This record gives sequence, C-alpha cells and structure tokens, in this order.
Amino acid sequence: MSRIMNFSAGPSTLPLEVLEEARDQLINYQDSGASLIEVSHRGKAYSAVHEEALANLHELLGLTDDHAVLLLQSGATGQFAMVPMNLLGAGQTADYTNSGSWAKKAIGAAQKIGDINVVADCGDDRPTRVPTDAEMTQTPGAAYLHITTNETISGAQWKQLPETDAPLVADMSSDILSRPLDYSRLDLVYAGAQKNLGPAGATLVAIRRDLAEQTGEHLPLSMRYKTHMDDGSMHNTPPCFSVYMIMLVTRWLKKRGLESVFECNRRKAEKLYAAIDATDFYQGTAATDCRSDMNVTFRLANEQLEPVFADEATKEGMIGLKGHRSVGGLRASIYNAFPEEGVDALVSLMQEFERTNG
Amino acid sequence: MSRIMNFSAGPSTLPLEVLEEARDQLINYQDSGASLIEVSHRGKAYSAVHEEALANLHELLGLTDDHAVLLLQSGATGQFAMVPMNLLGAGQTADYTNSGSWAKKAIGAAQKIGDINVVADCGDDRPTRVPTDAEMTQTPGAAYLHITTNETISGAQWKQLPETDAPLVADMSSDILSRPLDYSRLDLVYAGAQKNLGPAGATLVAIRRDLAEQTGEHLPLSMRYKTHMDDGSMHNTPPCFSVYMIMLVTRWLKKRGLESVFECNRRKAEKLYAAIDATDFYQGTAATDCRSDMNVTFRLANEQLEPVFADEATKEGMIGLKGHRSVGGLRASIYNAFPEEGVDALVSLMQEFERTNG
Repeated sequence: MSRIMNFSAGPSTLPLEVLEEARDQLINYQDSGASLIEVSHRGKAYSAVHEEALANLHELLGLTDDHAVLLLQSGATGQFAMVPMNLLGAGQTADYTNSGSWAKKAIGAAQKIGDINVVADCGDDRPTRVPTDAEMTQTPGAAYLHITTNETISGAQWKQLPETDAPLVADMSSDILSRPLDYSRLDLVYAGAQKNLGPAGATLVAIRRDLAEQTGEHLPLSMRYKTHMDDGSMHNTPPCFSVYMIMLVTRWLKKRGLESVFECNRRKAEKLYAAIDATDFYQGTAATDCRSDMNVTFRLANEQLEPVFADEATKEGMIGLKGHRSVGGLRASIYNAFPEEGVDALVSLMQEFERTNG
Repeated sequence: MSRIMNFSAGPSTLPLEVLEEARDQLINYQDSGASLIEVSHRGKAYSAVHEEALANLHELLGLTDDHAVLLLQSGATGQFAMVPMNLLGAGQTADYTNSGSWAKKAIGAAQKIGDINVVADCGDDRPTRVPTDAEMTQTPGAAYLHITTNETISGAQWKQLPETDAPLVADMSSDILSRPLDYSRLDLVYAGAQKNLGPAGATLVAIRRDLAEQTGEHLPLSMRYKTHMDDGSMHNTPPCFSVYMIMLVTRWLKKRGLESVFECNRRKAEKLYAAIDATDFYQGTAATDCRSDMNVTFRLANEQLEPVFADEATKEGMIGLKGHRSVGGLRASIYNAFPEEGVDALVSLMQEFERTNG
C-alpha cells in the first residue's frame, strides 16, 4: 500500500504506527475476545486507556495538579459555548481577540451568553495576522481574555502568549502540543483532537482547578467543567475510540519528545515558506511574523492556476491542498504527524509547477 | 480468535462483520492511501459515509421529511441539557416522567433550565416499572412530555408510547431501533449510539423540523438543533469514526430488517425471562409487564451468590453480567448485535449454577 501525502486541515494525518496498532487491535483487544469499543467504559481495559490518555496529555502539557485535564466531546465549537457559560458571570465582561474565522465563531457564541468586549480586531486584515499586545485595550477586571492561537484558515499564529491580568483562555485546536509553550499560563485551554491529537470526536480541555471549582453552579451537570473534572471525564460514556487513539498518539509524541517534534515542525514550515518566498510566482497570505507552523497558506500570483496546481498535486499523491472554501487559495496543513518527506515533495512540485507554468 | 459473549450495557457488542470491515479499511480506506479518519470531513469519501448514515437512520426510523435526523456528540447526557435549552421557553412548563436512574438525570438537567413538572414518579418503585398513562396528570399546554423508553439500569421498558397533547420527547438510548415503533409520534427522540447503533461518540437526534425551526434562537449556534439541521450535522467536525460505524451498523440492520431484529430480540429476552421464572432461585427485578427486551435484570434469592455467579460466567466466556454499581444484582444486556447463542449459553449456565448451588 502506498500512503498518500495528506495535507488535510483536520481531520488530518495520523502516525502510521498508531493506525497499524489500532487496526491490529480493533476486533480482539489484547486477546480479550472483544473490541475495546464494545466493552464497558468502566471496565479495566478501557479505564487503563482513559487514564493513560489523560496522564500523557497532562505530562506533555507540563502541567501541575493546579490544572485538570479533561477529554470531552463536541469539539472546539462546543467549547465556544461552554467557556462563557461557565466563566462569564452576570455583570461581567469577557475580552476576546478577533484574529480570523475561528476567533469570530468563538465571539459569536459568547455574545449569546453575556457581555463581550472585542479588544483587538484584525480578523479581516490582509496579510492575515494576529493582534499585538500593544493594540489591545483590555477591560479591567475582565472575566477572561480569549485568544485563538492558530487560525487554521488564515494561517496566522500567535508566537507567544499575550500579557494579561485576566484569566487567559485559548483555543489551541490547531497547534496544541505542536510546540513547547508555558501551557500553565493558560487558565483554560481547549482543542478539538483532530489536528495534532487524534481523530475527530474528542476535545481536550485543560483548566485551572480553582477556576472549575468556582464556576458553573447554575448549569446542567454536563455543561459544567467541575462535573467532568470531579468525574475524571467519565461523567457520561466517553468517546472511547477517539480517547484510545489519543492515548496512542500521545505515546508516540512522548517517544519523540515535544522539543524534537517542534524542531521538525519548524523545519517543515521553513522549507515551505522558503519555497514561497523564493519567487513572486507564489505569495504567502499571512504576515511574516505570524506565519503558522501548522497551516501554510499561500496563493499563486495567477490565481487561476490554483485549481490547476491542486489537480497536479493530486496526481502526484498530495491531497488536501485547496484552501478553505471561505478564502480560496492553497493551504498545506503540516501537523505533527505529517512527514517531512511530504513537505519535500510539495516543495519539488512547487518548483516544477513554476517551471512549467511560470 | 474466540469471541467472548459480551453482555455489557453500553458500550456493547457490535456485529462481527462490521468490526471486520472497519478493521480491513482502517488504514487504507477504499484504496485511497489514507484512513477515512484522516481525511477532510468535507471530502467525497467521508461525505458519502455521513449522508448514508443519516439516510439509513431516517429510513429505519420510518420517518418522513417532517423530521430531520441529526448525528451530534456528547451522548444522551448532552441531550438532557440541550432538550430543555431548546424547547423549554420562559414561562413554560415541561412534563417529565420519572421511571428510574436515567429519567432522574434528564429531570435534574432540565431543572437547571426551567420549570419542570414530574407528572408520574415511580423511579424508586420495586419491582421496577415505568408509569402508566392513567397515573400521569399532564400539564395543560406543557412545552413537552419527556419519557425514558428503556431504563438500562432497572430493566424497565415502555411497551407503548403514552398518549399526550404535548410534543413527545423520548430518550431511547438503550432501545432505539430494537423494535418497530411509530417513531413519527416522537417529536424529538435522542439516543447515545453505544447500545444499538455503534460505538460511543455519536448521538442520534430525530426532531420534527418545525419544532427545530421555531426554537433556540437565543442559544449559541452549536447548542441549537436548527443549526445542525440546516448544516446536515456538519456544523462542526463530526465524530467521523463513530458515524462511519453507525453507517456500517445501519447497513447491517437494513439487511436483517427491523421486524426480524425485533423478533430475535423478543426471543432472546423471552428465553432469559423464562429461565428466571422457572425457579425461585432467580428473581426478575422489573414488573412483568415492563420487562425490558434489552436489559434483563435479575437477582439470586441468595444475593451473596451473585458475585460467584458473575465469576463463573466470566470463566465460561461471558462478561458484563454484573448489575450497575448503583443497584447491584445481575444484568444481561442483549442489544441487537448480541447473538442468540450467547443467550442460550447464559440460560445453560443459570440452570447449571442452580444445580450446583441451589
């Protein structure tokens, strides 16, 4: 079997060794005579998987017991609602930054819950970018400040966390555990699994324990962080297969080491940005200092050639390069599990395509 | 490989042919060079799976276009909150029936949202049972009437839907598509997938389109049924693997036919209840006219023998027979995919165990 080079923005490439192990275990898990996805989530087999997934995430994020790590459902989109439902009390204001499509969705959901102050708005700027600390006028006593650390669609990424006196909340769906970071500075961080952690269907939340303790008492149990914290993410039946895959992916991450994963991610991104910058034939769409290591977005100077390029790539075994339908252009999503050889192949294609069509 | 006889209450036994197909396709889906769980949920491969899963469910439920079928996340537990958030307006009352543990959880969540009237309360009755129409005093003009059609823990099941003038809402997590039923009478029905539909991680909702249209405007998009209806359950990244498995399970269900699945379920349940009733050594815990076809709950007259029985069963390759930790006793969960041979084996064990220990 020949593996395709899969630049999909999410769901996205998984490590081959993880897929192989999942396949080999799918029907008869550890010779138990049943699949892991058929047996009780309270039983020994699944409990061990669940605990290991949570512990691996906790360790990889470098968090202490001041934070609880949860695995929930409904994606970052679910968190767009759950964050303000829990953390935005009556009479309070929450600060949001608008850095693009995903930040806007977080803002839209929060506006249905309470008072929101958009403290920096560069969501429609071109080249695409994220706000600077200097341009934010934060609300004194804000319930929290919300950022979207990597805009998957625009390809703009926060390279460092902003300074703030408020609790800091981040949607890190598309760059969680792609780089070392002081994750403990995030009072709440959430991420859909389907980019760097596993398949779709599970959602990581890491929350400061005292924040979870103090909030959400007015909510139905399932909507409250404290419930899931107290119940070890077993308040209701977890998405067992997705959690199992996260356990395998985090094992793979631990084996490689976050620092080494980051170095590889940097190398992959630099190769692509270098190819873009080498010629006027290609143009990066994100401001240079905000270029994402995860989603490399670019256009062809002649935009009409973009679908031709994408078709050519498909013929060469590279899929998922079309930009998001809302913005067009091209996008190479190169998350942790995307192999460096795939980036080299894309760079070669870019050079060859320019020779043929330039 | 020898398959174990898996009486787990959920997650639970899946059809072997479904697991085999999932395994064979897991790494290289339809020779595409990628797993289905690695590629874009908007791409052709996953879209076809998603559409087929929804269409199969629609067909099996026998619904017209008056209903929309959705696949969401967060389980029935998530629906405990989402139902009243959408359907229970200010100044309205929602009627709930209390038939046991799961109904109580639905009631608890709804009480956080608005005014609730518990119109029948037999949640703590022994033998366990569900309410009769006669004992309910329904609220005139109620926003809806909520029932839990099968109490997985107590083993009590509604054999027919109640009469009501209000919209009828049902949690059918543990008996959805286990029997023919006029599903169109349910204005909203929801079910976690992990009993009769597939693995954990996806949640079926079938809702009357006009009800979804008229409600939930005050909610964040992801909390509103209308959003998911309008977006074909693609408002955010769906739980792709779980939906894929539901597609395979519904194919398997269509091939067998709901009527024939029901006949087999009835046969399985009758064999077990007959074994229970044949002797005073065993005692059913649900009232005879409410006995569940899905979860056969029973005790040993000598309760101290129950763990011995469960251990004996494990030695014979039967797992998951311990009753829920909240009630004890024994429980045989025999959902659609549980094979009749497993029931025969359990009946034999029950007879043998009585001979040895009676």
